[in-house]
Amino acid sequence: NCVNKKMLCCICGSFGKRYAEVATANGKQVETLKVPLGEPMLPDLLDQKLSEIPDVEAVSITHNETSVGLLNPLAKLAEVVKSHGKLLLVDAVSSMGGTEIKVDRWGLDVCFSSSQKCFGVPPGLGVGSVSADALKKSETAENKGWYFDFKVWEKHQKKKGTPMTSVIPQIAGLNTILGMIEEKGGKEWFFDLYAERNRRIREGVQKLGLTMFPKSGYESPTVNCVNAPADVDGVAVYERMREEGFELAKGYGSVQNATFRIGNMGYIESETIDSMLDALGKVLVDLGWKV
Amino acid sequence: NCVNKKMLCCICGSFGKRYAEVATANGKQVETLKVPLGEPMLPDLLDQKLSEIPDVEAVSITHNETSVGLLNPLAKLAEVVKSHGKLLLVDAVSSMGGTEIKVDRWGLDVCFSSSQKCFGVPPGLGVGSVSADALKKSETAENKGWYFDFKVWEKHQKKKGTPMTSVIPQIAGLNTILGMIEEKGGKEWFFDLYAERNRRIREGVQKLGLTMFPKSGYESPTVNCVNAPADVDGVAVYERMREEGFELAKGYGSVQNATFRIGNMGYIESETIDSMLDALGKVLVDLGWKV
Repeated sequence: NCVNKKMLCCICGSFGKRYAEVATANGKQVETLKVPLGEPMLPDLLDQKLSEIPDVEAVSITHNETSVGLLNPLAKLAEVVKSHGKLLLVDAVSSMGGTEIKVDRWGLDVCFSSSQKCFGVPPGLGVGSVSADALKKSETAENKGWYFDFKVWEKHQKKKGTPMTSVIPQIAGLNTILGMIEEKGGKEWFFDLYAERNRRIREGVQKLGLTMFPKSGYESPTVNCVNAPADVDGVAVYERMREEGFELAKGYGSVQNATFRIGNMGYIESETIDSMLDALGKVLVDLGWKV
Repeated sequence: NCVNKKMLCCICGSFGKRYAEVATANGKQVETLKVPLGEPMLPDLLDQKLSEIPDVEAVSITHNETSVGLLNPLAKLAEVVKSHGKLLLVDAVSSMGGTEIKVDRWGLDVCFSSSQKCFGVPPGLGVGSVSADALKKSETAENKGWYFDFKVWEKHQKKKGTPMTSVIPQIAGLNTILGMIEEKGGKEWFFDLYAERNRRIREGVQKLGLTMFPKSGYESPTVNCVNAPADVDGVAVYERMREEGFELAKGYGSVQNATFRIGNMGYIESETIDSMLDALGKVLVDLGWKV
């Protein structure tokens, strides 16, 4: 919808890479800007890259790179993209709802997520916003298909409808959770809940003597990517924790064996976090870890 | 996935037209074969058209054209398509589950439906099959995007996974209904249920003195498109029936005011059909119909 020929995809991990694959599969010419795993995308680097390739039409950024538990400094990156006059396409799948995103103020042209991450609703529903600039670009964009064509959606939305039958149960679920959030104190309350839960997880992990994989200051508030101790396999930690009744996540891609991940999305009680941390300590010792 | 350049879309109504729009939006060169509303796509006509345009790579057919309540003679149409050596893409959205479809025997290369029609599960899940020939074509097909790329799906299915998070509640729902069907007597039992319910609806409609919109012999088993009597507006019938507590469907597209539709999908009791027919008789009289 927003690119005819060429775009830049920022890659900090597997989901940034996925974005580039999808863009390529849609016939776009894709430039990439990669940083080492665990490092954030920094504004200066992006600024420099955009100066080198002024002919890209849009930039994609993964706000929260789930594969390495890293939150990119989106506000500042957006400033850079806007200063170059490009459209900004944001994968906010695992951050929307879990941390502040100022779509309009930051100038995010496309910002999407889905029901099953921070909102904690079953999967199946995409949630997103499209700016006036992105809609305008969509008027002349080619080869955008039909199902996700912004102009087709706009037409039906004006009649308060959708182009195709909607995934109704998940829409009802999303309305329910949004209503609950509103009732409890609005988005600030929800963001605080995420922050508080994640502080509890991260402090517990650090108390066990473990370190985080992403660069300090860029840790994700919704998924914690933890370094497995030397001589302990990250996948084994995942599997043993599963036997204990806790569904963590395996490391992703090339850091699969070196890390494991602890998610913070959906409905979680503080007590569950504490029991999980207790179990984690025991599992690590079982796996031969010497503190 | 199945077309690089050119395809033929058979159009018997709004959903055949939609297929052509989607193909065009995906950058395909689309030839169309249209019949007047209410008429089926007949094998001889298709045979002739395919002889005229031998360079199309695939043919799309709407099995059950919901907009006019018409079931196309798919087995015979498939024979024609195969005799010309083309791939056959079937929109079976509103027929799969409601009537026999012999995917392999008829040679349907792509045959898809969705959860919310005959299966009676909430919307959100696409259901389909892809032939070996279609998969082979997909290897070299260009601009097929990523989300529906057959080869991407094949790769993940081999690992018993999916390329992206699945719409889990609807998958559970589909498994449940399929299990129920198996238990009650298999697909024959389910097809008989549809046939019996539809006989009840159609006989009732005819007993009221109404006629069907599609050509005799091609009426759909899952949605009945009924001619509104002279001087009665089809949309008014829909709206008055809604007030009576029965959700029929408006006519679709250019026959919106001349017809109304009675669906036969999902969970319906015989008693409900009978009360609906009673209400329909009264509503029509209220609307000024003189039998």
